[in-house]
Amino acid sequence: MGNSRLILALDVYELKKALEIAESTAEYLWAVKVNWPLIIGSGLEIITELKERTGLPVIADLKLADIPNTNRLIASKVFEAGADYIIAHGFVGRDSVKAVMELGKTIIVVEMSHPGAEEFIQPVTDRLIELANELGPFGVIAPATRPERVRYTRSKLMPGIKVITPGVGVQGGSAREALNAGADYIIVGRAIYESENPGKAAKRIYEEIGG
Amino acid sequence: MGNSRLILALDVYELKKALEIAESTAEYLWAVKVNWPLIIGSGLEIITELKERTGLPVIADLKLADIPNTNRLIASKVFEAGADYIIAHGFVGRDSVKAVMELGKTIIVVEMSHPGAEEFIQPVTDRLIELANELGPFGVIAPATRPERVRYTRSKLMPGIKVITPGVGVQGGSAREALNAGADYIIVGRAIYESENPGKAAKRIYEEIGG
Repeated sequence: MGNSRLILALDVYELKKALEIAESTAEYLWAVKVNWPLIIGSGLEIITELKERTGLPVIADLKLADIPNTNRLIASKVFEAGADYIIAHGFVGRDSVKAVMELGKTIIVVEMSHPGAEEFIQPVTDRLIELANELGPFGVIAPATRPERVRYTRSKLMPGIKVITPGVGVQGGSAREALNAGADYIIVGRAIYESENPGKAAKRIYEEIGG
Repeated sequence: MGNSRLILALDVYELKKALEIAESTAEYLWAVKVNWPLIIGSGLEIITELKERTGLPVIADLKLADIPNTNRLIASKVFEAGADYIIAHGFVGRDSVKAVMELGKTIIVVEMSHPGAEEFIQPVTDRLIELANELGPFGVIAPATRPERVRYTRSKLMPGIKVITPGVGVQGGSAREALNAGADYIIVGRAIYESENPGKAAKRIYEEIGG
């Protein structure tokens, strides 16, 4: 849906089920996000097929974190398969991120919310945001589990760069709070795909956030 | 070969060619390293097939850098396919690394050598080495392009944890120097697989390093 701000994290690993859930929720989504377990289980064709079946943008959540040449090789195959956006880590440095950005729209991880993120990632979030401001990617990833961090990220980030927030729903983040804090898009996974009626669950969240 | 210290970085993306090169070089290798472009091009079966054809350990160079649950999901599929070792980033924190270590033998990235690594990775290499010392993985990755850094890493690392060094050959690192500096295994890619006779090239390096 053109005005939706909802991204479905399609973290199910059976091709048929993945396609069913995507189709039954598509009208309430802005985009579908796939990650490595689904890609290695179903092949890159899952991206092409998802786009055909739903007409929605597909975000490949690869968390790319390799040297520029390897990032480039991976990204070229995934963009060729039809991915519209690739998520890459900023902490491997600007050359590695640029290698992805030269091939297509890129979303940079500037913060993560699991406990281990406090060790190395969170201490450099400010510098990762600066990196994003210099490079001008499509967007950055900042977790919805802490709305004050979404607000902070938004305040430091150049206008035009989108803030995309996972962690809504089962992980405890509130969609409304994340959007109020400045998120442009929220990513919801289990609260939709583990629901008995994913279409209904997606509709409820879509309406809740005033899509 | 049991006493070899040579790892082939099999960065070719055609299944048939990959298997041919692996078979023609196997007798000079300790292990074969595969990365994402080959896995997404050929499917996870490439790992199973490589093991069957060569009898060598397979290292999956995934540079895993996600939250613990996603790292776990990816690692479980790749270990199930027959990978003996998985390469994961330390940068995402100990919980993410532990999620991989609980499933199988793990190699932690503590340093990288591309220019962008100077921004965020190299400043925390000491702490990434400490992390490895606490967790006790199979080994760590430290680039051969700077032997003094291999020596430094070895000096800080607990005995028993292996030092594995990419960057030998076309990237400029010397195999002999890397081993003298304390590397346990060296990773060679293009100098072998781009050679007209990969078997001969692997043999030459194997003999050069006194395998």
